[in-house]
Amino acid sequence: MPSSKEIHLKSRPRGLPTADNFEFVEVDVSEPGENEVLVQNIYMSVDPYMRGRMREDFALGEVLAGGAVGKVVASKHNDFQAGDYVSNFSGWREYFLSNGEDLTKVDASLAPLSCYLGVLGMPGLTAYGGLLVTGELKDGETVFVSAASGAVGSVVGQIAKVKGCTVIGSAGSDEKVAELINEFGFDHAFNYKTADPLTELRKAAPDGIDVYFENVGGIQLEAALTHMKINGRIPICGMISTYNDAGTASPGPRNLTETIYKFITMKGFVVSGFGAQQPQFVEDMAGWIKSGEVKYHETIFDGIDSAPTAFMGLFDGTNNGKMLVQLADQ
Amino acid sequence: MPSSKEIHLKSRPRGLPTADNFEFVEVDVSEPGENEVLVQNIYMSVDPYMRGRMREDFALGEVLAGGAVGKVVASKHNDFQAGDYVSNFSGWREYFLSNGEDLTKVDASLAPLSCYLGVLGMPGLTAYGGLLVTGELKDGETVFVSAASGAVGSVVGQIAKVKGCTVIGSAGSDEKVAELINEFGFDHAFNYKTADPLTELRKAAPDGIDVYFENVGGIQLEAALTHMKINGRIPICGMISTYNDAGTASPGPRNLTETIYKFITMKGFVVSGFGAQQPQFVEDMAGWIKSGEVKYHETIFDGIDSAPTAFMGLFDGTNNGKMLVQLADQ
Repeated sequence: MPSSKEIHLKSRPRGLPTADNFEFVEVDVSEPGENEVLVQNIYMSVDPYMRGRMREDFALGEVLAGGAVGKVVASKHNDFQAGDYVSNFSGWREYFLSNGEDLTKVDASLAPLSCYLGVLGMPGLTAYGGLLVTGELKDGETVFVSAASGAVGSVVGQIAKVKGCTVIGSAGSDEKVAELINEFGFDHAFNYKTADPLTELRKAAPDGIDVYFENVGGIQLEAALTHMKINGRIPICGMISTYNDAGTASPGPRNLTETIYKFITMKGFVVSGFGAQQPQFVEDMAGWIKSGEVKYHETIFDGIDSAPTAFMGLFDGTNNGKMLVQLADQ
Repeated sequence: MPSSKEIHLKSRPRGLPTADNFEFVEVDVSEPGENEVLVQNIYMSVDPYMRGRMREDFALGEVLAGGAVGKVVASKHNDFQAGDYVSNFSGWREYFLSNGEDLTKVDASLAPLSCYLGVLGMPGLTAYGGLLVTGELKDGETVFVSAASGAVGSVVGQIAKVKGCTVIGSAGSDEKVAELINEFGFDHAFNYKTADPLTELRKAAPDGIDVYFENVGGIQLEAALTHMKINGRIPICGMISTYNDAGTASPGPRNLTETIYKFITMKGFVVSGFGAQQPQFVEDMAGWIKSGEVKYHETIFDGIDSAPTAFMGLFDGTNNGKMLVQLADQ
């Protein structure tokens, strides 16, 4: 019966989270009972959205939760056996018991295990489904993606390149822009803080945009609408720029009427809509990782003790690519 | 050789169009040459979309254009003979010569001739295609249509009723609201000038809206987005509330992020996209007119001199149903 270290929410952060908000607790984990599985987490994910959940969703004095991938160490469940790798939503702890409903088996031979929290996980499927299903991308089209250096955006651009598309990305620093071109193979990239989006789109794609993968809203959405081609599609993944600090929403684009004469489709989606595409996604993405067509960056902290530091690092630019904590050897 | 009065675009409207934007010009029309047809227009249509085309499409100092239906008065073309009725896109003039390519013969026995500019014409096909093709309406769904007493909106609602839907409409006067219920068979209707759209939608359709047929933009689009069901669809036909903004365009809805978690599709369209549906449309619509399932209203101005007034009336609620100008007796 292992002892498991886990991290509780001790107090709610005011402003930036600090070490004081977290508490380490050592708990005993019992052997699995009938239809139970004992899982040891190997990697856990820290993500900015968790900061929001610390406001009220996560209970004080209880263990935090988040995406993780681990190994079954003991099982009395017919669907799982020791040695299986499973993705789960029980991060922030070393071991846990499960009835199996929240576990998804993953194939560790396809790609590094940590990929199941990134390019082979929710961010990857979000990019894949949003671009190919919602966005109905066709080979050779012209694609624009905002927040292009993020976990979703960088995969969007690389999938589009696999499909023979011309790819334009925007990001918020010259370093990120350089990375889009040099590392991720984008055809064009610009810094939306220092360049005018519409001017950049016209320069990079004189004939217009077929698919705009929308992550930010605001002026970039307006520029995309203005420069869309006939029958253009805008899969809407997020609109991070449209919420200000006071929590009231900013107005939408002034040129929604562009949709009319150009037969533009705007369609919202979340990753939960792509369950049917999951098997094909894993097959495709594992192949693209192997061939080097899809690259990714990770920043990996070592040991559960470093999880609060990793989480706090999300807010000060520490990370480059997906931020992970490794809890155990594979 | 008749003399024909026609209307030229004298200056581009800023904001609402005024009489100063139009100029009447008297021209001589010659007899038809080989393979030519001389047409006398009987009815011409004025439509909100023409306001958009006055921004740049229509040339200054040249005759305006728009839907019309007329009678062949002389022909040296094999496909047409005197007495034929033809729909055409050469409105805003009394007579014109054609090589026949822009003329479509219509059957005056199927329905009154003016219907070919309304329920059996572009507005009817706009409603039919926008609702059934772009909006992918399913039998029994809940439909909201704005500008519901207009030439398109009233047909949208009535087609939805034929399809067994619950239908909610908005209009700009209590008289129009009463007409939607009593004349066109809507289940619910409200005056958007005196009632809060979101409150009305919640009252009329507690479970939400499947299809919002968008004609107006603004606060009604925001209300619809907020009250859409999962997988809701918003065919975008027009946004008349934003057309006459001089200089700066109105902002879009503040809640476009509603599309994300609700997988909402917004899709623009124009009637030219529904060529493939035209034959089925005429068959269906002629049947619905005969059975009384689709009713229509017309506001008919008399004589080409009244055309600018009729057009300007589109933007101040003057019209009830399809706005037409009668140029000659049938």
